[in-house]
Formats: sequence, C-alpha cells, structure tokens
Amino acid sequence: MLSDLLVIMDLTGVAVFAATGGLVASRKQMDLIGFGMMATLTGIGGGTLRDALLDRPIFWITDQRYLLVCLGIALIIYFFAPLVQRRYTLLLWGDAIGLAAFSVLGAFIALQTGATPLPAIVLGMMTATFGGLIRDIVAGEKSLLLKPEVYATAALLSAGVFTVMASFGVPLILSTLTGIVAGFALRAGGIHFGWSLPRYRQRAGRTYK
Amino acid sequence: MLSDLLVIMDLTGVAVFAATGGLVASRKQMDLIGFGMMATLTGIGGGTLRDALLDRPIFWITDQRYLLVCLGIALIIYFFAPLVQRRYTLLLWGDAIGLAAFSVLGAFIALQTGATPLPAIVLGMMTATFGGLIRDIVAGEKSLLLKPEVYATAALLSAGVFTVMASFGVPLILSTLTGIVAGFALRAGGIHFGWSLPRYRQRAGRTYK
Amino acid sequence: MLSDLLVIMDLTGVAVFAATGGLVASRKQMDLIGFGMMATLTGIGGGTLRDALLDRPIFWITDQRYLLVCLGIALIIYFFAPLVQRRYTLLLWGDAIGLAAFSVLGAFIALQTGATPLPAIVLGMMTATFGGLIRDIVAGEKSLLLKPEVYATAALLSAGVFTVMASFGVPLILSTLTGIVAGFALRAGGIHFGWSLPRYRQRAGRTYK
Repeated sequence: MLSDLLVIMDLTGVAVFAATGGLVASRKQMDLIGFGMMATLTGIGGGTLRDALLDRPIFWITDQRYLLVCLGIALIIYFFAPLVQRRYTLLLWGDAIGLAAFSVLGAFIALQTGATPLPAIVLGMMTATFGGLIRDIVAGEKSLLLKPEVYATAALLSAGVFTVMASFGVPLILSTLTGIVAGFALRAGGIHFGWSLPRYRQRAGRTYK
Repeated sequence: MLSDLLVIMDLTGVAVFAATGGLVASRKQMDLIGFGMMATLTGIGGGTLRDALLDRPIFWITDQRYLLVCLGIALIIYFFAPLVQRRYTLLLWGDAIGLAAFSVLGAFIALQTGATPLPAIVLGMMTATFGGLIRDIVAGEKSLLLKPEVYATAALLSAGVFTVMASFGVPLILSTLTGIVAGFALRAGGIHFGWSLPRYRQRAGRTYK
Repeated sequence: MLSDLLVIMDLTGVAVFAATGGLVASRKQMDLIGFGMMATLTGIGGGTLRDALLDRPIFWITDQRYLLVCLGIALIIYFFAPLVQRRYTLLLWGDAIGLAAFSVLGAFIALQTGATPLPAIVLGMMTATFGGLIRDIVAGEKSLLLKPEVYATAALLSAGVFTVMASFGVPLILSTLTGIVAGFALRAGGIHFGWSLPRYRQRAGRTYK
C-alpha cells in the first residue's frame, strides 16, 4: 500500500513536471519532438540525478510507464494547450504539488538507500529542482534560482520536515503528508502573496570599522 | 566482427561529434585547451550519459583511444580549420552521420544491458543528442532544440527503426544499417531541403466552444 | 597521514569553490537559499561527476562534512561578503588553489580506481573545472572556457604533472605537491600577468596553395 502510494506520487510528480516542460516548449514554439524532449527532461531529470548519485537503477529505465506519461503529456499539451485558458496559473500550481511531492520522495529514497539526514535533505531538494533547472537552461529561460519568490526554499522545507520527522520515528504516512503540505503551503504563499526571502544586497552605504 | 563494427562506428561517431565541438570552439575563438575541452565534451558527452545511466563502465575511461581521437581532432581543427573551405557544410554532414550512428549504437547497448524498447529508444536518442546539447550550452549558442530543421527527430527515427527491427528479430547488421540510413536520410532532408516539423503556434485567433 | 592530507585538501578545495559560488550568488543578488545552492553546486559539482563516472560512492553522501562546509561558507558569505573588500581578488586566488588541488586529487582518485593515465588526467581536470562550469551556466555568467587567461590549462598542468610523476613511481607526497605548485603557478601567472594561450583566429588574410 505504501509502495503504491509512492508510485502514484512519483507518476504524478513526473506528470506535472513534464507538463511544465511542455508549456515551456509551447512558449518557445518548439515542434512536437521538442515538446517530447522538454517534457521528458523536466519530468525525469531530477529523479534521474537522484538515482544516478545513489547508484540505484534509473527509475524510468526499469519502469517504462514514466516515459509513457511524459510523452502522453507532451502530446496533450501540444494539441490542447490553447484550450487551457490561464495555463500559466495551472503550471504554477501543478509545479508546486510536484515540487513538494518530489522533495519528500527523493529524501525518502535517499534515507532508504542508507544516506544520513543532511545528504538526504539535499538529495530530496535536488530531485525536486533539478528537472526545472535543466528545463530553464535548455530553453534559455531565466533560471528558477534567479526568480524572486520562494521555490527551492519550499523544496528544502518539504525535504527537511519529512527527513526530521522520519528520523525521529514518526510514521511514514504522517511525515510524508506533513512534509508535502509544509512545502506546498510555503510555495503557495510564494505564488499567491509573492512571499520571498530577502535577497542579498550590496550594502554600499554601510561603513565598517 | 560485429563488435569490430561497433567500435569503428563508435570511434567515427566520437570523431565527428568532436569535430563539431572543435568547430564551435573555432567560431568562439577559444584557445587550444578550449578546443580540446569542447571537442571532448561533445565527442564523449552522449556516450558518457548513456553509460552512467545504464551503470556500465564509462567507455572512455576503459578505452583511452576515445580521448586520443577527441584530442587529435581538436589539434587538427585548431591548426587546419582555415584550410577547410565551407567547413560548416562539412560540419553539418559529419554531424548527420554521427547522429544516426550514435542513436543506433546507444539503443543497441541499452537493449543489450536489458532495457525494454521504449527506454532503449530514449537512451539511443540521448546518446546522439546530449553531446551537442552541452556543446551549445557551454558555448552559449542557441540550443539545437530551438532550431527549425529536423534534428532530434532524426535521432529518434534511427533509434526507433533499429529498436523495433531488432526487437522483431531482424538480423543485427540489417537493423543497424536500416536504422542509420533512415535517420541520416531524414536529417539530410532537413539540411538540404529544410524539412521541419510544424512548430507549435499560439492559435490565438481560433475559438473553442 | 596521507589520507588525512587528502581529506584536508578535499575539504579546502570544496570550501574555496563553494566560496566562489557564494560570491557569484552575491553578484546576482540571490536569496539565502540561492547562496546555499550556488555554493553547494560549485563546491561539490566536480567531485560528484568524478565519483559518478568512476562508479564510486558519491563523497558528500558518504561524509556529510562536505555539505556542512558548503552551507557554512554560504552563510558566511551571505552575511559577511560586504566586509571583505576586494573580494573578487580573494575569489580568484582561492579558486586558483582549489583548481590545482582538485585536479591532483581527481587524478589521484582515478588512478587509484584503476584508470590509465590519460583518462586520469582528464578526470582530474574535470573534477577541478566542472563545478565552475555549472556555476557559470546556472548563474548565466560567461563560461570560464570563454575567458582569456589560462584556467583549464592550469588544471590540465596540475593533473598532468601529478599523473606523469605518480606513474613513474615518484613518492605520492612529492608528486602531489609538485602537481599543485605547477598548476597554481601557471594560474597565478594568468591572474597576475594575464598569461593566456593564443586564441584561434580566423586567418582570413592568409592564402593557401
């Protein structure tokens, strides 16, 4: 049952990330193959890095449903994106769910593979953000690291809350849900209220002795 | 004999990709080390990703001829590129051969390592396109995913034709050659006639009920 | 004692690279999480690639001190960067030390894992330059491959001198120090005197028979 939940989370996360890749492909007016590649890169990028670093079999090579999901999403977006009004809003919210779910999933897998908590948190965050990072690099878009609202921070919160709770023995379902809700709520604040962390500023006016 | 053919295909693919990397280095007026790095990154990038994802020993660590080829190509291009008139044409055609050969080779290795057909096709396509993708990112050039003519599509066709034929038991030499010819022919149409897939367009004027 | 020396070199290299990542984050006015991610990507990027390609356990998953160093450096730079006058000078010199040390370390680990000399040299150079390469790509800065002064060349020299000496049986401490000093001296010449390799130039005026 738990492993079913994990697979469903994983497929959902891959699907929403793939959708953000497809939407970037539509903005860049790519062809159908470009849609497929952007959806796939974004959908499976983070999990691929996670599995490669943990020396596990790569999830989408073992189970081809993940690729089918990415390619299906690419097709749907190529043909139906214009139907979807306000699709950037959809993109943002879908991405927020994927971000939180993938952070927790990545951290969970890392802990299961024997990683200690701090690397597990970092691997969770990577799982959630790496696909988007390469999506933006390949498409020549402004990197998500340079955008103002909380994003990677939400991934960090999800992975952190989950990892700390799981390390203290809180039941897995509870720590999973709490981790997802925490990161999603933070990201929701970023989307809706424009929450952001203070950015570094050249404090030129200040003087130091 | 088959494995000889594979090694020759592989060395040839690495050499032509390395050459495209070297030519980009010449366009960006890099120094000799830059030539070496661009040639090597482009030449071995795709196969490195393939081997890392399939958890095989990385081919150029095991067999140093691949690095020698990349570095030799870098030297040749650094000193003789001006001799070669119309070298962008050469680049395009060499790249087309490498693209088709690497797609088939990547898919073949994936199947041999036990991958199912769909992941094998994706891995074949990645093997062929990843080196060029990082070449363009590192050099700050427009990504091949954003260019109009068929490119990744040709890689997909090569990997797909080969994988389907091989999965149905067609002799390896025949499926290999058919796969290479199919992808090369498609890419040739892209270079010569400007073939391209329809790009996604904002269908703003259309109305939906 | 030798392995202590290696760990110290490694932690130092990670720290100075992390610092260059943090300083780029300050230039791009990122938030604290951005600092953490840039410092971590830059600090551990090269070694991660090295370990993944050599199919070793990833160093920062096994030993979480590396992440602590990156995050600590990110915090320090976020809060104290304005204190440091002329921090770009510091960045350059710290980076020069890390570059030389990481090249030697990467080549050493590759040789130890059974690689032959040429791949070991390439892996050493990759270990030293890959973190900076992704730092520049993610931050949208001009790639270090496109900058005029010797940089990758110094990494190549360090890895090359070390690997050749070690292959001829020179004691490890001696080849390590010589390798580091050679690459550092070359890079120092690049920083101080602007040493550079001749760049490829379109020799349009020349005629060939």
